[in-house]
Amino acid sequence: MSCEAPIGIFDSGVGGLTVAKEIMQQLPKEKLIYFGDTARVPYGSKSKETVTAYSRQIIKFLLSKQVKAIVVACNTASALALDTVSKEVEVPMIGVVKPGAKVAVQTTKNGKIGVIGTEATIRSGLYPTLLKAMNPKLEVYEQPCPLFVPLVEEMWLNDPVTKEIAKRYICGLQKQDIDTLVLGCTHYPLLRPILREIVGDQVALVNPAYETAKYLKEVLSLKKLECTENKYQSDHIFYVSDGAEKFRAFASSILACEMIETKDVNIKIFD
Amino acid sequence: MSCEAPIGIFDSGVGGLTVAKEIMQQLPKEKLIYFGDTARVPYGSKSKETVTAYSRQIIKFLLSKQVKAIVVACNTASALALDTVSKEVEVPMIGVVKPGAKVAVQTTKNGKIGVIGTEATIRSGLYPTLLKAMNPKLEVYEQPCPLFVPLVEEMWLNDPVTKEIAKRYICGLQKQDIDTLVLGCTHYPLLRPILREIVGDQVALVNPAYETAKYLKEVLSLKKLECTENKYQSDHIFYVSDGAEKFRAFASSILACEMIETKDVNIKIFD
Repeated sequence: MSCEAPIGIFDSGVGGLTVAKEIMQQLPKEKLIYFGDTARVPYGSKSKETVTAYSRQIIKFLLSKQVKAIVVACNTASALALDTVSKEVEVPMIGVVKPGAKVAVQTTKNGKIGVIGTEATIRSGLYPTLLKAMNPKLEVYEQPCPLFVPLVEEMWLNDPVTKEIAKRYICGLQKQDIDTLVLGCTHYPLLRPILREIVGDQVALVNPAYETAKYLKEVLSLKKLECTENKYQSDHIFYVSDGAEKFRAFASSILACEMIETKDVNIKIFD
Repeated sequence: MSCEAPIGIFDSGVGGLTVAKEIMQQLPKEKLIYFGDTARVPYGSKSKETVTAYSRQIIKFLLSKQVKAIVVACNTASALALDTVSKEVEVPMIGVVKPGAKVAVQTTKNGKIGVIGTEATIRSGLYPTLLKAMNPKLEVYEQPCPLFVPLVEEMWLNDPVTKEIAKRYICGLQKQDIDTLVLGCTHYPLLRPILREIVGDQVALVNPAYETAKYLKEVLSLKKLECTENKYQSDHIFYVSDGAEKFRAFASSILACEMIETKDVNIKIFD
């Protein structure tokens, strides 16, 4: 495997761009191949079997692009499929749930952690399992927020309606006196301003993206797969399973860069 | 083709149940095979190519069940795919858009019609085209409501947040002095109480489901395919591409019946 090979990264849609952005900042020499499954978003309401089958197709596609590592930039796929699919391939594969849990444990002071995510992520129970494995005394409170992904995909990011919905989702967690809130879905950091307003300064908002990029750097270094040359900078390619144009507009605003190469791909043929 | 063969009906998810319910009432002797594409809902944000490809798979599946007719109980698929796919099969295939447009023309008194639907349905322009073909003097005002499907799929049917979102979507249409509002997505009749509150009694709410069932009855009669025996009553089968249990709960509440046979099916193999 060559150090110059790209890094594969995938999500159910645009949410994984928050992770891609962090990787671009922490590993500026690496080339990214991003896949957003916009034809089948959202994943959070789907079953383990379906999310695993979709993840397998995408991994096959990314491997066809000779990636040297794969980042599962989707909490739902990380929680439901990563354990199974990571055993089926030879390249290192990392998810966002473990890094997110790790930083939450380091952040909390009163030991009370809130986790918000999709229905499927919360149902999987993976966050509490990982958190309590690191510290059995932690109290973990969870809340699924099924409308957040559609709201983000519609770009209602700073909207009174979104705030009202967020308030309703968060109020139960606030009553539990949490001091740390894990944004357990890669779409949610885009709602950070609204979430910050609701929880105030007393609650730390944990975005697993930062820790995921840091962990990816460690893994690449360990496997001697870091790219040391600068030639690939901003040479990233973005694939989607539907609506390349809409995705391009969204990605440009999130990544704050103009020139983004976006292509449609028929993901079903990788079955 | 036998009169005793079942009628196939499909939608992107649970929305088509509003049409199934109407067919059960108007054609109580017929057996229905319903398919809800819950693994890939929503369709309304997807492209014509994707919705056509998905519709083709589902039609293939329904034909494998020997259906005598197919009802496309999804406005998005009716608007984007019906014209293409109906030419590829021999059984009669009817959508919900044409019947919906027909009843809107019969309903309006001042000639000002509002249409709400998914992004894809509105972008297709099919409702204004059909309405104006029937009466060129009509004024048609459209509004996409992309959050309605996720809200319905989450069952926030009679909720202040849903009402606030609905108000925002509808206010522009109200300013145009419409007297008729077409619920151009099969999910929307489930929001009827909220929509009624917002528009008041002066605006007629048109649900294409009723007219679609009526049209289906005419087509079956014309082709001499009506089932005259009563033996199939309530012997319907519901297939979904994901989450049969969740669907069963939802379907039971919408159809107001307890015993519903629901099965998971891998729709991708019908490619």
